[in-house]
Amino acid sequence: MSEQPVFNRRHSGAHILAAALTELYGDVKLGVGPVVENGFYYDVLAPKTLTEEDLPKIEQKMREIIDRDDAFRREELSIEDAVKLFESKGQAFKVELLRDLKEKGTTKVNAEESLDIGGGAMNASVYHTGSFVDLCRGPHVDHSKEIGGAFALTKLAGAYWRGSERNPQLQRVYGILFSTKEELDAHLKMQEEAKKRDHRKLGKELDLFHLAEEVGPGLPLFYPKGAWLRRTVEDLIMRRQEARGYQAIWIPHITKGHLYEISGHLQKYDAMYPPMSLKDEADYYLKPMNCPHFMMLYKSQPHSYRDLPVRWVCTTTNYRYEKSGELSGLTRVRSLTQDDCHVFTTPEGIRAEIDLVLDMVGDVYRIFGFKDFKVRVSVHDPAKPEAYIGDKEIWSQSEATLKELITARGWEHEIGVGEAAFYGPKLDFIFKDAIGRPWQLSTIQLDMNLPNRFDLEYVAADGSKKRPVVIHRAILGSTERFLGILIEHFAGAFPLWLAPEQIRIATVADAFVLHANKLADELRAAGLRVWVDASPEKVGKKIRAAAMMKVPWTVVIGEKETGGGDLHVKVFGEEGEKVIPAGTFVDETVRLAQPPK
Amino acid sequence: MSEQPVFNRRHSGAHILAAALTELYGDVKLGVGPVVENGFYYDVLAPKTLTEEDLPKIEQKMREIIDRDDAFRREELSIEDAVKLFESKGQAFKVELLRDLKEKGTTKVNAEESLDIGGGAMNASVYHTGSFVDLCRGPHVDHSKEIGGAFALTKLAGAYWRGSERNPQLQRVYGILFSTKEELDAHLKMQEEAKKRDHRKLGKELDLFHLAEEVGPGLPLFYPKGAWLRRTVEDLIMRRQEARGYQAIWIPHITKGHLYEISGHLQKYDAMYPPMSLKDEADYYLKPMNCPHFMMLYKSQPHSYRDLPVRWVCTTTNYRYEKSGELSGLTRVRSLTQDDCHVFTTPEGIRAEIDLVLDMVGDVYRIFGFKDFKVRVSVHDPAKPEAYIGDKEIWSQSEATLKELITARGWEHEIGVGEAAFYGPKLDFIFKDAIGRPWQLSTIQLDMNLPNRFDLEYVAADGSKKRPVVIHRAILGSTERFLGILIEHFAGAFPLWLAPEQIRIATVADAFVLHANKLADELRAAGLRVWVDASPEKVGKKIRAAAMMKVPWTVVIGEKETGGGDLHVKVFGEEGEKVIPAGTFVDETVRLAQPPK
Repeated sequence: MSEQPVFNRRHSGAHILAAALTELYGDVKLGVGPVVENGFYYDVLAPKTLTEEDLPKIEQKMREIIDRDDAFRREELSIEDAVKLFESKGQAFKVELLRDLKEKGTTKVNAEESLDIGGGAMNASVYHTGSFVDLCRGPHVDHSKEIGGAFALTKLAGAYWRGSERNPQLQRVYGILFSTKEELDAHLKMQEEAKKRDHRKLGKELDLFHLAEEVGPGLPLFYPKGAWLRRTVEDLIMRRQEARGYQAIWIPHITKGHLYEISGHLQKYDAMYPPMSLKDEADYYLKPMNCPHFMMLYKSQPHSYRDLPVRWVCTTTNYRYEKSGELSGLTRVRSLTQDDCHVFTTPEGIRAEIDLVLDMVGDVYRIFGFKDFKVRVSVHDPAKPEAYIGDKEIWSQSEATLKELITARGWEHEIGVGEAAFYGPKLDFIFKDAIGRPWQLSTIQLDMNLPNRFDLEYVAADGSKKRPVVIHRAILGSTERFLGILIEHFAGAFPLWLAPEQIRIATVADAFVLHANKLADELRAAGLRVWVDASPEKVGKKIRAAAMMKVPWTVVIGEKETGGGDLHVKVFGEEGEKVIPAGTFVDETVRLAQPPK
Repeated sequence: MSEQPVFNRRHSGAHILAAALTELYGDVKLGVGPVVENGFYYDVLAPKTLTEEDLPKIEQKMREIIDRDDAFRREELSIEDAVKLFESKGQAFKVELLRDLKEKGTTKVNAEESLDIGGGAMNASVYHTGSFVDLCRGPHVDHSKEIGGAFALTKLAGAYWRGSERNPQLQRVYGILFSTKEELDAHLKMQEEAKKRDHRKLGKELDLFHLAEEVGPGLPLFYPKGAWLRRTVEDLIMRRQEARGYQAIWIPHITKGHLYEISGHLQKYDAMYPPMSLKDEADYYLKPMNCPHFMMLYKSQPHSYRDLPVRWVCTTTNYRYEKSGELSGLTRVRSLTQDDCHVFTTPEGIRAEIDLVLDMVGDVYRIFGFKDFKVRVSVHDPAKPEAYIGDKEIWSQSEATLKELITARGWEHEIGVGEAAFYGPKLDFIFKDAIGRPWQLSTIQLDMNLPNRFDLEYVAADGSKKRPVVIHRAILGSTERFLGILIEHFAGAFPLWLAPEQIRIATVADAFVLHANKLADELRAAGLRVWVDASPEKVGKKIRAAAMMKVPWTVVIGEKETGGGDLHVKVFGEEGEKVIPAGTFVDETVRLAQPPK
């Protein structure tokens, strides 16, 4: 038995799913059944409506069929013969696809997906497994046992045939499939873990943010704890930036459309909100990005090579009209607050500026404990010189610089040839979170386009006017998305320095409220975020309530603690207690609550 | 000679201006000539177009006429007789006004102004001075010498007759007039001083903000120094608020229109930007205020009397479509960032919350050195109980509380009966700046309306559901306007703790740049904002450049200073120098740069 690529296993798994459905329910009309991330699906119209309860039975039937170890046999047919074959089987959807292929020369299933139904232009291939046959280009495993048993049917969904509401609605059966049982188990465990860490669920439970029907999808409102996290993360980045000579600017959230005509966004960028039309004036637009405003501000002052680089940061919120179906909690929003930096530099300054940005990225990832990341270096395609604008010398030097500086830091990276934008090369940072899911975070992008469009200049040492290069850069990406990722990464259990509520003080009885409040005031005066639970509940219940909110430290104040002896700290997620003398408690807490250097 | 009220002097001054114009230019058609703030104007159509160069001559003629000391003689005429009189004088505008009075029973000059042309419904009064006669209700001085000599003609402007573009354009001659020469001089000096302090001029000179044609009027962009001022002011307020238990929330800048239907703003508030119409979704609006979002966030959680008050602050920017003609620098903008606080409290909690807010106001004014302010207390009109909503008991108690708490603080105040909003009483703070100009700043407003419209509740001690009261509050008003006022108050010469650039280090020669940079780094590490001027210019020129930018401290680094001896500080606006030993320079600067406690 040969070792099969997992793609082939998944592909064959989809056929076996269709075969199992046919054996179980008889006249099942088959739509399409492609391989997707981690598995496959099949769209079907069965004589009965399938429910989640049917999935184990279907899965069992699949295992039976796999155990028969039938061969996957490929057959090449003319389109006419293929049509006859699927007509005889009553598979109208397959016949429709074949007719389309013949008449329109296309295999497009719907606007987004193109299905490879095999063969040459006027041929089609089919695959037989036992008595089951499907229109398919392949490849597949040779015999069904090679699929292996490391699979599971996971869910059902509705799906219109070819994605159009005008067509019949089919049922989509999803399966996941891996090469080994270990991989399957790890995936299921990660799914389970991801569910627990879902930031939309935790956002509600931990009073972080709120999505209101009356305000609109993708526009989260932040409760004090969530707003505190926003500000902390933004301030932390800003302080690190200021220490490196970056300066904040402030720009309004709307602008005349004219600005986006100059930048070219109005013509090309499709996530802009529609205009606000003022009768007596221009049309105004919500800004979907800051770049044009940065350009205007640079252009409004004279610049000499002596003043460059200009390193400007802006964190006023951008608005992008993402489709409502694509929105998700904080990770895909319509209101996104980027930690947006633009550096205006001489070409000679590019290397030092990239180096400084990489320093910042490394610094910030270290603070948040992001150890597992890699870098994608997007460079130009030397075979298509006509596809890029800007000075060739700047292109080749800056690409070399990017690779060299990343390599010097020992950061894992990949080169994406031909992935550069038409106006400059780029770096993307992909971070893996605590349960191994990849998230794209930071981006560094060279830009030789906007300085042209806005006719930016600086006076060079020889007195001539030259064009600066712009480096766009975001480290967090957006505050909203970063917070969503942070919540999932930490599963809502933030480290002491970052937690919106750092310390919960629980009183044993009313007699100790005064003492608890005094301690709380001392801690607050030292800059810590403390809540006192002086409710009439039992202390055990108070401790559990604090744990529910994932408060890092809980301190009980009762008879013993009012005497000035040791304080006992229940640390979230740890066994046992941390014991700190009352006399040094504030100092010690301040010390332990410092963000990583 | 009796002591005349200044209104009468100004009123008579307008007549004398018209008389002077008539004597100088012959057939002058007279429009209207009312008293305005600090003086008067007259709208006229003269046989020649007046220019600024004519003003001294006209002023001279006025003084001549005043010296004649003619009596101001009132005469009451029937409208018919008055029409005849002004027809005989060729004063068509006066005749038109008289005919209107007769036909429409109105004396309205245009949509905004109503001119009192005297007499009863069917009578008109005229005033004679020498051979000059004007339609006028009075009152006037008795003899022209009583007007005094403390006046000046200040400017010319165009003005359509009755404010309509369809009517002839007249020329408006402005004059200022005071009871004494001292008052006139003080006013002229203040005008001169105000011109120097104009924040629009200083905003450009000091690199604070920029208005870009491509972005739009009323939408300032802030350079790093201006953005730094914004953040400093906002952070300072936020820290003081946090120390008093206020918590920041965050809300998006746009919302579905539905939210403003609930709040009633969509129907009533006229400064909203037009909607962004999304085909597949609702209309979205830029938020002109935060209140409805605050209400939504409160409503999304259960509240018990135990958790009240809830004190929430929000500083995301609001957008109001102010008419472009009314916009001015930072003091009248379309993008305004309010330091907006909403307190949700039980009726019993109102007193303590108002007290806390007054504490905050007093605190903030003290920090910025605002000593000269008064409070306007707007209360309901007891004669019109039907004009107000909400619990009568809450009205009377809270109004009494407002007066009592203001009085207890010894703050100058006035009571405005009938000036309350229909939903609650209010406090406004009017601050006088360094040159005596009044600015409305803080507002505190009780609200018994929005809690109803949003059906807000809390669970009372007896388990019943009750309606909270909301207190709206802004201390700065908006960051933009406050900065505009601050710039004018300080004439751009910010105190050391507030200045965007605190210290300029000027090198005597290239040999001292290393030493200057080392000192700058030490100061920066201590949190100070320092620039090094290492340009090849002479040190005298560098010192003057720093003074042009109104940098509080300038330190010269040369041969003497590199040896570790004393450092000499040139303090902006002061004679002489401040001498600080090099060894304690950083510590001493940090100490002196602290904001007032």
